[in-house]
Amino acid sequence: MSEKQWTLGELAEAVGGRIQGDPEVRISEVATLGNAGTQQISFLANNKYRKFLQSTKASAVILDSEMARIFTGNALVVDDPYVTYARLAGLLYPQHTERTGRHPSAVIEPRAVVHPDAFVAANVFIGADATVAAGAEIGPGCVLMAGVSVGENSRLIANVTLGEKVQVGTGVVIHPGAVIGADGFGVAHDGEQWIKVPQIGSVEIGDNVEIGANTTIDRGAIDNTVIERGVKLDNQIQIAHNCIIGEHTVIAGCVGIAGSTRIGKHCAIGGGAAIGGHLQIADGVQLTGMSMVTKSISKPGVYSSGIPAEPNQQWHRNVVRYRQMDKLVERVKTLEAKFKSD
Amino acid sequence: MSEKQWTLGELAEAVGGRIQGDPEVRISEVATLGNAGTQQISFLANNKYRKFLQSTKASAVILDSEMARIFTGNALVVDDPYVTYARLAGLLYPQHTERTGRHPSAVIEPRAVVHPDAFVAANVFIGADATVAAGAEIGPGCVLMAGVSVGENSRLIANVTLGEKVQVGTGVVIHPGAVIGADGFGVAHDGEQWIKVPQIGSVEIGDNVEIGANTTIDRGAIDNTVIERGVKLDNQIQIAHNCIIGEHTVIAGCVGIAGSTRIGKHCAIGGGAAIGGHLQIADGVQLTGMSMVTKSISKPGVYSSGIPAEPNQQWHRNVVRYRQMDKLVERVKTLEAKFKSD
Amino acid sequence: MSEKQWTLGELAEAVGGRIQGDPEVRISEVATLGNAGTQQISFLANNKYRKFLQSTKASAVILDSEMARIFTGNALVVDDPYVTYARLAGLLYPQHTERTGRHPSAVIEPRAVVHPDAFVAANVFIGADATVAAGAEIGPGCVLMAGVSVGENSRLIANVTLGEKVQVGTGVVIHPGAVIGADGFGVAHDGEQWIKVPQIGSVEIGDNVEIGANTTIDRGAIDNTVIERGVKLDNQIQIAHNCIIGEHTVIAGCVGIAGSTRIGKHCAIGGGAAIGGHLQIADGVQLTGMSMVTKSISKPGVYSSGIPAEPNQQWHRNVVRYRQMDKLVERVKTLEAKFKSD
Repeated sequence: MSEKQWTLGELAEAVGGRIQGDPEVRISEVATLGNAGTQQISFLANNKYRKFLQSTKASAVILDSEMARIFTGNALVVDDPYVTYARLAGLLYPQHTERTGRHPSAVIEPRAVVHPDAFVAANVFIGADATVAAGAEIGPGCVLMAGVSVGENSRLIANVTLGEKVQVGTGVVIHPGAVIGADGFGVAHDGEQWIKVPQIGSVEIGDNVEIGANTTIDRGAIDNTVIERGVKLDNQIQIAHNCIIGEHTVIAGCVGIAGSTRIGKHCAIGGGAAIGGHLQIADGVQLTGMSMVTKSISKPGVYSSGIPAEPNQQWHRNVVRYRQMDKLVERVKTLEAKFKSD
Repeated sequence: MSEKQWTLGELAEAVGGRIQGDPEVRISEVATLGNAGTQQISFLANNKYRKFLQSTKASAVILDSEMARIFTGNALVVDDPYVTYARLAGLLYPQHTERTGRHPSAVIEPRAVVHPDAFVAANVFIGADATVAAGAEIGPGCVLMAGVSVGENSRLIANVTLGEKVQVGTGVVIHPGAVIGADGFGVAHDGEQWIKVPQIGSVEIGDNVEIGANTTIDRGAIDNTVIERGVKLDNQIQIAHNCIIGEHTVIAGCVGIAGSTRIGKHCAIGGGAAIGGHLQIADGVQLTGMSMVTKSISKPGVYSSGIPAEPNQQWHRNVVRYRQMDKLVERVKTLEAKFKSD
Repeated sequence: MSEKQWTLGELAEAVGGRIQGDPEVRISEVATLGNAGTQQISFLANNKYRKFLQSTKASAVILDSEMARIFTGNALVVDDPYVTYARLAGLLYPQHTERTGRHPSAVIEPRAVVHPDAFVAANVFIGADATVAAGAEIGPGCVLMAGVSVGENSRLIANVTLGEKVQVGTGVVIHPGAVIGADGFGVAHDGEQWIKVPQIGSVEIGDNVEIGANTTIDRGAIDNTVIERGVKLDNQIQIAHNCIIGEHTVIAGCVGIAGSTRIGKHCAIGGGAAIGGHLQIADGVQLTGMSMVTKSISKPGVYSSGIPAEPNQQWHRNVVRYRQMDKLVERVKTLEAKFKSD
């Protein structure tokens, strides 16, 4: 939580919006409409939660102008309550560290350069020739292999692994268990067995990227794998060697993207989707959850696949029907022929 | 393995069941029917392995009364051989540590409270204000961020990460690489780019929960994510912010559950299933493997989706047929119309 | 990169092939055709990149004899350019370490035996009775529990966890975040709750296996889980207890394999595939990405499932049609009956 004390008026000044009610009310925390109390601010961005509005005990609520009209408490009135909530929560709960220095248990190899205004936590390993910029935070148990660079104000929360020469931009957040720059999956079959193809490239992570827990991004086979600025990756995502993820694309959990695929800018990939290798996905493409993509997509729009779950017996019958479609088409053909010849 | 020496009679006393044969036979290990030998006990719970029963060299076998009738060796006769096996193996291979103390390489921050009867292994980090209760075991490389609490007799095997203020109950087991309490995936689009929504909530893990290797459970956006008591989670599962998993539910590997979804009690979720966000799944629901759930499920029962693999050529043809279903329906309509008008 | 200086002629001698052009040209690095320059060698293995051949600035290119005929620069002419590239890159970028010794921060328990020619990096934990053979490299943050053995020249890159008694062969590579030998998912329902079934077996990893980042391989319930020699596993794969993966099988990212399933030799499993438990998959089976396997497969060949993504509206319509197939079949039956009776 913030050390600073805020009034609703000060918050409005910082994040924008019009105040309805008392600008002097004190705000120190956020809470949901249903659970909020004194000194807490809430928001309404999803109509589903509208029922909690009139009875909320929040000291103030972030609302759009339509909702504000029917609300009698203190409100911060804005165009997009969720965006304003995000900004305001960022003020109340600052995400950067103010710690600097190195824990004595951290191992920092010769020729690594750690800025004095960076923070290096316990049990960290930083390899030779790595650089960590000012304001960066390397959390406990992180491993930065030789030649890595981490930009200003980037935060590796804990137990993150960065492979050799991985480059991380500024303002990046990487969650625990993420592995950036492991070898790509490159094998060549010599007729008898699989030979490893050395993975010579690295990974470039742009500014303001966020990478979720246990997500993996492999180093390039020869050229680099690239995550452009502003990309947001959820947990347990696998991005194979030489993929390029376009700026401001968001990818939900458990997505797998095979090698050398290029995802456009401002895409939104739903959870559990799988995208084949060597494909091009246009800017502005949205994939719903569990989509299976085997061909390039050249136009923006929403794409989907997968058949939602149904009661088990019905599913069994439908699978059988699915497998008989060929025969069904034959039966219709026969009917059509008979009809004609009739 | 247990230090204690057991006879079949002593084991029967401890886990229940009727002895057929020699109660004095010594038992020190478990083994499969096919591989068992002297001092080893085996069990038969799956008819598939019945063929190994008559030739087994096990010193004793756990059987139901029907199987016991046809078996001439030493047997422990019980209602449910698999449950009895589980209990008996728990005696022969105690799962808790008897070690206490702290390895000198562990880093424990000021104001953290580690019970003297807990064990803290090498290269552990325990943040400020964290508490570790009696009998708990924090394995090598684990990171417990500030304010975490770990209950009595809970075991974090190795390289586990618990984010700030995560609360772990008693008798919990967490396997390596699991990340509990990383930020939920909260982003708001301001028209140009995605802004991070600070994740203020935490995670509560109930008593006797087990969490598999590399499973991730995100902290709540505002309120907590909750895993109720007795839940068993396999490896590589992703549970998003503000999910609630009802007590005694089991979830197999590679399942993904999107944000704010509530899974009921006593559910069984098959491997690779994906469940959308903001859904309610009733108590007693079973999902078969790879099910895709996009709507709430209000009744207990078995639900399924997905079409099992078939030879590639057949698959190609079926996908084409699937995509022509619309046309096929039109053809049938035309036939119906013609027939009527005939 | 290699310390050694190579000429094209020396490389040809080492990896085979016929030189076209200047055998004395110096080669120190690999690069893609489009990016290569002086002292760099490239290759052409995929027709897609043929357009870059004539304009490449590479000092030499690995080509098959057909391509070599139309190329005027220096070439190494071989049967399979990709396999030769893999071997040659292995010479230019040696994958083994030449470091030996133990970092002072490594914790090595009593009775563990680490060969003097092995390398143990910072913040490693090696448990009692573990053995690490000559030439092996245990990277920063790795945890080797009691009784583990790691064979000659095997490399654990960083933050790898090996559970108790896991056996790793020679020449194995294990990438960060991989967890080998966590407990299998064994639970028995006693009528009220799930009881943990102790997992007594371990994991055997054969020679020359590669295991990707954040992949998990569980220990066996009683007998061992086995990964045979030459198997190559990508990232984020889950292999459950008592699976056996046959030699020289390759498995792409995000695949899940349920317990006690046996995969044959020389199989190729596409990304995101899911394979049920207690199945037998024959030698030489190929599964395309996202295949769902619920039955054993007894013949080699290519198998597939899943319906690729399509525009969202079309998808909606097709899902509805899919669910009406039963009715459609009835309508066709009615037509057939009417026609007959006509």
